[in-house]
Amino acid sequence: MSKNVLILPGDGIGPEIVTQARRVLELVNEQDSLGLEFSEALVGGAAIDAEGVPLPETTLEAAKAADAILLGAVGGPKWDTNPDFQIRPEKGLLGIRSNLGLFGNLRPAILYPQLAHASTLKPEVVSGLDILIVRELTGGIYFGQPRGVRVKEGGIREGYNTYVYDENEIRRIGRVAFEAARARNKKLCSVDKANVLEVTVLWREVMEEVAKDYPDVELSHMYVDNAAMQLVRAPKQFDVMVTGNMFGDILSDAAAMLTGSIGMLPSASLDVNGKGMYEPCHGSAPDIAGQGKANPLATILSAAMMLRYSLDSGATADRIEAAVSQVLDQNLRTADIMSEGMAQVSTSEMGDAVVAAL
Amino acid sequence: MSKNVLILPGDGIGPEIVTQARRVLELVNEQDSLGLEFSEALVGGAAIDAEGVPLPETTLEAAKAADAILLGAVGGPKWDTNPDFQIRPEKGLLGIRSNLGLFGNLRPAILYPQLAHASTLKPEVVSGLDILIVRELTGGIYFGQPRGVRVKEGGIREGYNTYVYDENEIRRIGRVAFEAARARNKKLCSVDKANVLEVTVLWREVMEEVAKDYPDVELSHMYVDNAAMQLVRAPKQFDVMVTGNMFGDILSDAAAMLTGSIGMLPSASLDVNGKGMYEPCHGSAPDIAGQGKANPLATILSAAMMLRYSLDSGATADRIEAAVSQVLDQNLRTADIMSEGMAQVSTSEMGDAVVAAL
Ligand SMILES: CC(C)[C@H](C(=O)O)[C@@H](O)C(=O)O
Ligand SMILES: CC(C)[C@H](C(=O)O)[C@@H](O)C(=O)O
Repeated sequence: MSKNVLILPGDGIGPEIVTQARRVLELVNEQDSLGLEFSEALVGGAAIDAEGVPLPETTLEAAKAADAILLGAVGGPKWDTNPDFQIRPEKGLLGIRSNLGLFGNLRPAILYPQLAHASTLKPEVVSGLDILIVRELTGGIYFGQPRGVRVKEGGIREGYNTYVYDENEIRRIGRVAFEAARARNKKLCSVDKANVLEVTVLWREVMEEVAKDYPDVELSHMYVDNAAMQLVRAPKQFDVMVTGNMFGDILSDAAAMLTGSIGMLPSASLDVNGKGMYEPCHGSAPDIAGQGKANPLATILSAAMMLRYSLDSGATADRIEAAVSQVLDQNLRTADIMSEGMAQVSTSEMGDAVVAAL
Repeated sequence: MSKNVLILPGDGIGPEIVTQARRVLELVNEQDSLGLEFSEALVGGAAIDAEGVPLPETTLEAAKAADAILLGAVGGPKWDTNPDFQIRPEKGLLGIRSNLGLFGNLRPAILYPQLAHASTLKPEVVSGLDILIVRELTGGIYFGQPRGVRVKEGGIREGYNTYVYDENEIRRIGRVAFEAARARNKKLCSVDKANVLEVTVLWREVMEEVAKDYPDVELSHMYVDNAAMQLVRAPKQFDVMVTGNMFGDILSDAAAMLTGSIGMLPSASLDVNGKGMYEPCHGSAPDIAGQGKANPLATILSAAMMLRYSLDSGATADRIEAAVSQVLDQNLRTADIMSEGMAQVSTSEMGDAVVAAL
């Protein structure tokens, strides 16, 4: 039985990096007889340019029908000033997350031993770093209603958004995080601002309730400001962190940057059945788009995650990850992770190397 | 004419550190004939224990009547589980900020050359670091209405908060930030999440409007997730950053921790007339309270900021800052900033040293 993989190149460096990931997927598909079928669709700025909206109906339908989705990245200055807030590239991404119910966002921050020097932090602080951030992705202030900009009395403009979670949403992401912690080092830190925000008082309460089903996992709580500090001070204290959409956006980017090689970090966004969208943690990097400078490894590793979590091909995922480690051992580096004594390669040369290693 | 300084020791290490700052203030008061008069009042957990509320009416009245306020820190696990959300230490702090209109929060993140090694970041990344974070302190999601936890149909609990800013609030903090940038290196980075949150679309718009009055200051915009990343990647790219209450809470703590010596960092919270409350950036550290381990320097430097911004005694502030630098040159260190070859001192010994240097 064949499985459909939808590829969404998106904007900026998106097309370049998914091209390399697709090459890798096509190769392992043949080698391991995975029965994958590939199709592509437009999302983000590319979709705005072609069809006037960031998430065309055809793309949404294809995403719903697919068994798994691989996304490059969306966004760029070209569309940032669009006065209609609905016609922005990011709305395409948010629309897929929301319409497909991809509430469980897994963002590993792993320091590759070969790239230890790339971190701006001292080696003893980050060596061996391996954190998993579990971010709620379809709720919170990203999607809360009411929202908008209105004009108050006196003609004063006022902007407003709503940060809202119900206990079911919290419980659902809590379970994902506890399961992940159980499969790792059994330490879960839930991040909130329960000393100020009522919505996160409920968050903390529900996490405590879920904890009862996971007596083997040690749950702790941390305020978000302290979490941002602790990530800089002593990141290795963390195993799994779980938090809401907005805090997760901020903390996962900070955590990723601790490794110094955000060009290496994949992510998964899963629905209740484990169907998912996979994308690199980094953005669309419009400043280097089309120059063959982008690092395709985060996207290739996202493809591996996709094989493992949504396509039941864990062994193939292992092979891809080993191949990535091998090209690093071969001292091949794209510009973002380049350092003295290494060989700098282009986006496609890095893809060649992974293909060769496979 | 005498000036009233209200001292709020608060909780945890608060009493110990303000004791040292008060000694310093009393000394310079005499030396420089500043005409300061001191009084103390309860806030936070200490006030809950004594009077049942985190911000007693007498404290609020004293705060309103004072010319300037010096705060230690509030909070601790003892009060964290209080089921009545209004009876938490933090509410005392938030109540003063809000009732006194202390909307302009200045949080410098400065790396003291003597403490360069204390940072977890590589020296070349942070040496010479000098960022000022301007955080809006009386609006945004901290104070937005409606807020709470309600029970929806089906008996489902739902928590909600409101992130709201009107253009006047944004303009007001914008001016503080532009003025600060003008007095420094003329670079202002405004941090928002304008690709997702409407309230920050307005934020960005109004910052652009304010910028017209400051053609000598270079304004840039950055999404909050990227800002968290850039603080880790290349913090020296920033001069002044301006952002809302919640993002400012997170980013200022991350920025402070870049220095590795959050025990050294003061802060100011100002109203429209320059009256202010001054406090260390660090928290109440209940784990080391009462042990004479706390670093009083951030509070002493907060007292210096108070003299400069609210008490018209910039020359005395300079003297205090020089004295702090001198004790660091004498290799005196509290536990938090201790390193090999230095002399470890207690809270009061550090106070002694600053007093001696003055
Ligand atoms: C592009 C943007 C809407 C998105 C987000 O904020 O979720 C991105 O920053 C991410 O983290 O995936
Ligand atoms: C104690 C808490 C309410 C406070 C805040 O979040 O503002 C603190 O973290 C701070 O940054 O001053």
